[in-house]
Amino acid sequence: MKVIKDSVHDHIQVDGVARALLDTPALQRLRRIRQLGTVSLVYPSANHTRFEHSIGVYHLACEALEQLDVDGKRAERVQAAAMLHDVGHGPFSHNLESLTYRRTGRYHDDVHDLLVDGEVGEVLRDHGLEPETVADLVAGEGRFGQLVSGELDVDRMDYLVRDAHHTGVPYGTIDPGRILRELVFVDGELVLDEGNVQAAESLLVARALMNPTVYSHSVARISKAMLRRAAERLLDNPETDVDAATLQRMDDPDLLVALRSCDPTSEFSRRLDERDLFKRAVWAEIDAVPGGVIEADHDKIRSFEREIADAADVDDEDVILDVPSRPSMKESTSRVMVSGEIRRLEQQSPLVEALRAAQYSQWRLGVYSPPNVRERVGQAAVKVLGLDIDGALVSEVRNGDDLETTLDQFVD
Amino acid sequence: MKVIKDSVHDHIQVDGVARALLDTPALQRLRRIRQLGTVSLVYPSANHTRFEHSIGVYHLACEALEQLDVDGKRAERVQAAAMLHDVGHGPFSHNLESLTYRRTGRYHDDVHDLLVDGEVGEVLRDHGLEPETVADLVAGEGRFGQLVSGELDVDRMDYLVRDAHHTGVPYGTIDPGRILRELVFVDGELVLDEGNVQAAESLLVARALMNPTVYSHSVARISKAMLRRAAERLLDNPETDVDAATLQRMDDPDLLVALRSCDPTSEFSRRLDERDLFKRAVWAEIDAVPGGVIEADHDKIRSFEREIADAADVDDEDVILDVPSRPSMKESTSRVMVSGEIRRLEQQSPLVEALRAAQYSQWRLGVYSPPNVRERVGQAAVKVLGLDIDGALVSEVRNGDDLETTLDQFVD
Amino acid sequence: MKVIKDSVHDHIQVDGVARALLDTPALQRLRRIRQLGTVSLVYPSANHTRFEHSIGVYHLACEALEQLDVDGKRAERVQAAAMLHDVGHGPFSHNLESLTYRRTGRYHDDVHDLLVDGEVGEVLRDHGLEPETVADLVAGEGRFGQLVSGELDVDRMDYLVRDAHHTGVPYGTIDPGRILRELVFVDGELVLDEGNVQAAESLLVARALMNPTVYSHSVARISKAMLRRAAERLLDNPETDVDAATLQRMDDPDLLVALRSCDPTSEFSRRLDERDLFKRAVWAEIDAVPGGVIEADHDKIRSFEREIADAADVDDEDVILDVPSRPSMKESTSRVMVSGEIRRLEQQSPLVEALRAAQYSQWRLGVYSPPNVRERVGQAAVKVLGLDIDGALVSEVRNGDDLETTLDQFVD
Amino acid sequence: MKVIKDSVHDHIQVDGVARALLDTPALQRLRRIRQLGTVSLVYPSANHTRFEHSIGVYHLACEALEQLDVDGKRAERVQAAAMLHDVGHGPFSHNLESLTYRRTGRYHDDVHDLLVDGEVGEVLRDHGLEPETVADLVAGEGRFGQLVSGELDVDRMDYLVRDAHHTGVPYGTIDPGRILRELVFVDGELVLDEGNVQAAESLLVARALMNPTVYSHSVARISKAMLRRAAERLLDNPETDVDAATLQRMDDPDLLVALRSCDPTSEFSRRLDERDLFKRAVWAEIDAVPGGVIEADHDKIRSFEREIADAADVDDEDVILDVPSRPSMKESTSRVMVSGEIRRLEQQSPLVEALRAAQYSQWRLGVYSPPNVRERVGQAAVKVLGLDIDGALVSEVRNGDDLETTLDQFVD
Repeated sequence: MKVIKDSVHDHIQVDGVARALLDTPALQRLRRIRQLGTVSLVYPSANHTRFEHSIGVYHLACEALEQLDVDGKRAERVQAAAMLHDVGHGPFSHNLESLTYRRTGRYHDDVHDLLVDGEVGEVLRDHGLEPETVADLVAGEGRFGQLVSGELDVDRMDYLVRDAHHTGVPYGTIDPGRILRELVFVDGELVLDEGNVQAAESLLVARALMNPTVYSHSVARISKAMLRRAAERLLDNPETDVDAATLQRMDDPDLLVALRSCDPTSEFSRRLDERDLFKRAVWAEIDAVPGGVIEADHDKIRSFEREIADAADVDDEDVILDVPSRPSMKESTSRVMVSGEIRRLEQQSPLVEALRAAQYSQWRLGVYSPPNVRERVGQAAVKVLGLDIDGALVSEVRNGDDLETTLDQFVD
Repeated sequence: MKVIKDSVHDHIQVDGVARALLDTPALQRLRRIRQLGTVSLVYPSANHTRFEHSIGVYHLACEALEQLDVDGKRAERVQAAAMLHDVGHGPFSHNLESLTYRRTGRYHDDVHDLLVDGEVGEVLRDHGLEPETVADLVAGEGRFGQLVSGELDVDRMDYLVRDAHHTGVPYGTIDPGRILRELVFVDGELVLDEGNVQAAESLLVARALMNPTVYSHSVARISKAMLRRAAERLLDNPETDVDAATLQRMDDPDLLVALRSCDPTSEFSRRLDERDLFKRAVWAEIDAVPGGVIEADHDKIRSFEREIADAADVDDEDVILDVPSRPSMKESTSRVMVSGEIRRLEQQSPLVEALRAAQYSQWRLGVYSPPNVRERVGQAAVKVLGLDIDGALVSEVRNGDDLETTLDQFVD
Repeated sequence: MKVIKDSVHDHIQVDGVARALLDTPALQRLRRIRQLGTVSLVYPSANHTRFEHSIGVYHLACEALEQLDVDGKRAERVQAAAMLHDVGHGPFSHNLESLTYRRTGRYHDDVHDLLVDGEVGEVLRDHGLEPETVADLVAGEGRFGQLVSGELDVDRMDYLVRDAHHTGVPYGTIDPGRILRELVFVDGELVLDEGNVQAAESLLVARALMNPTVYSHSVARISKAMLRRAAERLLDNPETDVDAATLQRMDDPDLLVALRSCDPTSEFSRRLDERDLFKRAVWAEIDAVPGGVIEADHDKIRSFEREIADAADVDDEDVILDVPSRPSMKESTSRVMVSGEIRRLEQQSPLVEALRAAQYSQWRLGVYSPPNVRERVGQAAVKVLGLDIDGALVSEVRNGDDLETTLDQFVD
Repeated sequence: MKVIKDSVHDHIQVDGVARALLDTPALQRLRRIRQLGTVSLVYPSANHTRFEHSIGVYHLACEALEQLDVDGKRAERVQAAAMLHDVGHGPFSHNLESLTYRRTGRYHDDVHDLLVDGEVGEVLRDHGLEPETVADLVAGEGRFGQLVSGELDVDRMDYLVRDAHHTGVPYGTIDPGRILRELVFVDGELVLDEGNVQAAESLLVARALMNPTVYSHSVARISKAMLRRAAERLLDNPETDVDAATLQRMDDPDLLVALRSCDPTSEFSRRLDERDLFKRAVWAEIDAVPGGVIEADHDKIRSFEREIADAADVDDEDVILDVPSRPSMKESTSRVMVSGEIRRLEQQSPLVEALRAAQYSQWRLGVYSPPNVRERVGQAAVKVLGLDIDGALVSEVRNGDDLETTLDQFVD
């Protein structure tokens, strides 16, 4: 048995298969992968890692299992999945996921290979667990899959509290202890017991507030886009032999140093290292953006970028077009007991629908460029993309003066 | 200058008129008025007082004024109002407000008399402030009234964080520092600057989550209803000479001891002191309750109670009918800057509308009685009030056994 | 089973005998006894009660017992003792203990009568526990007595953290989880396992820092002395029928209201209610005070007070002489494992000896009086008591002017 | 003006020269230097960096300057020094300082070169500040030097609280706000005003408790020693062109990746990456160690290591001897006002002397090796170093069995 002191959950006991997994290189690697990638460029204290998060998720899983009276192999399987749920992350966590997915067809929670092979697979089999089944749990499948990866999962409970603790932004402070105590299995699905509608809502709300404030803060998005651009150039550089699969298994230091070592990534790397970032040339609400732009695929985006660069007469590398995907509308899976019956959370809580709608009002298209050309890029982007300027903030120079732009006022 | 150590805001400097007000009996009295009344029967750590809250509100007001570049008499006026905004509270804060309002026509924020007369009036005038104007601010009037009493006011910012700290319920953890930094006056009204929609939402959300979890927790409502009943009996007792105005100026110890001293209040007092509380006989959603019950006035409620007691064959004092008022639909007054223009928060944020709707799903009618008669009272209440049992939890005895009731399962 | 939300330990499960004890009037009464008495006049947020503290102590006892693998009746006995350890407290906790002890010969931890009789005794016997044995544990006797009342006891672990949380003074932030995990029984005594010297030291240090900053803050001492004086007058008032035993069973509201109701206690009561406190006329280090004053008994103190009042030509009630007892030098009972052997903590840690010595440098004699006569009282006290003015701060008027005194500069 | 959200101090305003310094590469580099180096191998959440710490120190310096009524250039100079005080740190902060000092003759606070040259020098001169003077402040010289680098300095106030927040170990929770409010200049030196002995003590105590628990935790010391060994091998490797000055300017990722790239450092690097650490073969108190060992210089230590390796018949690289320097006895520089006069803290507080003595009881010599050879190495080390085994824990195999050793029981 091992006891770990955690800044969020205080003392955490780690036993059995989890104890053995802790010592595998796959898990220890997570010590060198920051939980929030470039968010630390906005919130300097946000340097926590996937490692401590994984231990925290394991801890909450143990509490949930105890509450649900689950033990033995069934419990160990869930505990292993909780501990391992993030081993598939590449450097800078989610930041490069779209890039590596495009080239490997694999998201971070597709961990079958990682769990079957090597030391992790050995540990799992030594403890009588089938790696494939654990990997299924990580992907959210099976009866307990929703506990590891679902709307009321222990992953989210941990990261909301942890991100709040380390950024200093208090919106993530939910009450995991309460939620875990109130989880029950009814007809094979996880349900929050009578009187806990607010506990369920709090998870959704916390996420909805943390999202624009932390995870999708404009500066985090800009630096993420720059990092993604740099990593793409690294992969395309014939002099390096880095392919997407290799990239995926790097840790943060590996990638940082690799970017410093060749052109043109070293310039992006310098900008990221020195926080000499691109700025927003355009920041547009969803209603101001034509559907063709919102739905554009990677190639189309690249071609827009080149077109804007041409129109603005700047270098290709000086324009980044950042278009989030259209807000998803998938149905809430949370269930709560109200007045003695099981209800879907969205049926009981008007908040669920509203939070979905809020994604629309929070959505923003961004065009980024070096500060000295942002006005030209901004004007060009409006034309090339056909934006409605009433719903967009556009960087501008007035009367040829070096005016502070509207956008500068709120760039922190 | 005085420095006060606060459990929430750490060191607070108190200067000028606020320093002088601090030493008045009117303010010192607030040390003996619990912020959350009977909520401490649910959350045992919730013993904080209106005194520390008042200092906290003053502190946040100072920060807002500094941010808004307001000083001199204008600032002092707001600081005084912040410090004094709760001196009108009776014992147990809001718990008895409906009772005293019915008999005095005065809510706790109607403080003109309290501010004009006595030591407080003297202090204000000595500092060149007009008591009437300060009282207007407390009532939310004037340019700065919305800062003292409005949707984005410093009162709410303080109590949400403070109640979270002392109950242990984390939903109130908003970010006052951020909101205060982003307040600007535009065309005479307080507006949150560009990029702060979530900061505004967080205040509304925190309140919406704290409300059912803390402020209107069923046990807090039951004990509040018992306290109100006891206080009403005290006022109606010909042997005591306590009238509503006297009651209003008592502090918590005064009232507690007064209730112990005569009949039938001593029995309620014993129940409250020993936490030997009434239990829910019925707990019904708004759609299950006929409009005539929801709109019933005090006399009508009393007559329902007697009717239920008769039907259940129990003593009159053994039935309490607790009907919250219909959720209010008043327009949000919060304003935010988005894409360079002032927008009403509810226009920008789908959450505002949803939170209003959530009040409906959170609304519950309660019928309370001693545990030993709750089943009979529950059955009687359903009939007398004409409740739809599909949307109501009703205490029941099955097969004559002393079964745990459905309601018992979630009475904490 | 019941789950209680606590501001310090978050969710606390209460089971078995503890669950039943929770509902007794003796325990519920502790909701109305402030943990720190008059300290709330210094730290306005310090309104926490003996009730929440008792639950916290119970919680830590459960953790210790689990760690030590103790269960069954032996565990229940300790749990009951933990829950009940403070039921003997009178109003304002320790504040009046010297007074009631003088008249009843009983300290707050002498709870045999309280545990044997009435509802508490019934509950204990119903659960197969012998009230006398539980009372012995409360008094620190028996194998587990040191866990309930000793140097490394759960009482101290709870109050240090709790007082820190509610005052805002961070010195009490020890690590109970660590200490509890490292407790082992060796040869029948509780020992901290290898590598935990600092954990043991931290408890002593926290107490040594909290003591002068919080528990013995000058304003807390002044108001405690005033309260004690008032309570003594109440007991001596022939018109009231309050004796020391009755006083001892009051709660805070009882006493507050009783003091308001007669003379001369009502004047002290007014001063306490309005925080219109006496001030220090003298504040002297131990080396500046003759041994005869330090060792003086209650009657001698009273006679000094009268003598000072005479010499200063002020009313008898206007002088309070506050002489703490000489620092105690009892041996530390803590044991730690170091390099494979059991050592007494004081043998291993030079801090223990130093903390004892620190009591000497922190010790202060105080003479208190109304502000307007403090200079006269100060001068008189120096003469009557024979103080060495080099080690004493004495209130003074210079050149007949209404000067700020040295003492005023550092009154909170 | 820029506002930064910090996990410890919440919102921090950064203005003037500090604002400009923030954007220099020298400061941004600190984002990639962990505050506590290898301590994160013990406390997984301890990933905070010198960057956020520097901003925190700047923030506390601003508060101190405001309190002391210092502004203008004098204030800016101190603010710049606070912000820059750690730019001299190499990768992993203090971990490699003895190594680089041996080869460059320079400690991390010798920053004259770094401040005079390059962008930092430009910024300072642009704001009318003399780089040399700022560098002197960083070294603790000048009237305000003690505020930046002394016993009551803002550096310590920040790191104690920050390290507590990020490790989860609560011993560092001091009260910076109080200390800063009570600082006064008397006769040219910083003094804590009357009534603040405990505030001063708390800083010393917090450090004394954090030291063995965090900074010198055995696992942190082992991994630090391994890192130092690896770095030394890197410098000595003829194939790399890394010299001590280059090493000193690396950031953490640079060093991590460099160590992975050559032999034999890659094996140390693997061990550190996978937390496959050496273990203690010996852990000895100061009285058990001959003076000649305690005073041994680097070469002598190396020769002891080889001798132990020979005697144990293991590879040279498998033995690390870790001898902390003899506890220093330098005089406390803190001053406090007591009874109206300035006193040296150590004159007033018996704790100061005791904390010095505590360094002796905390001191431990360590011999580390791979787990599989630790018993042999332990036995050999006892002989070679001439240790007294009564004051030492030595790893042992009993009866040829693969027994858990005494030491294993308390390894983290």
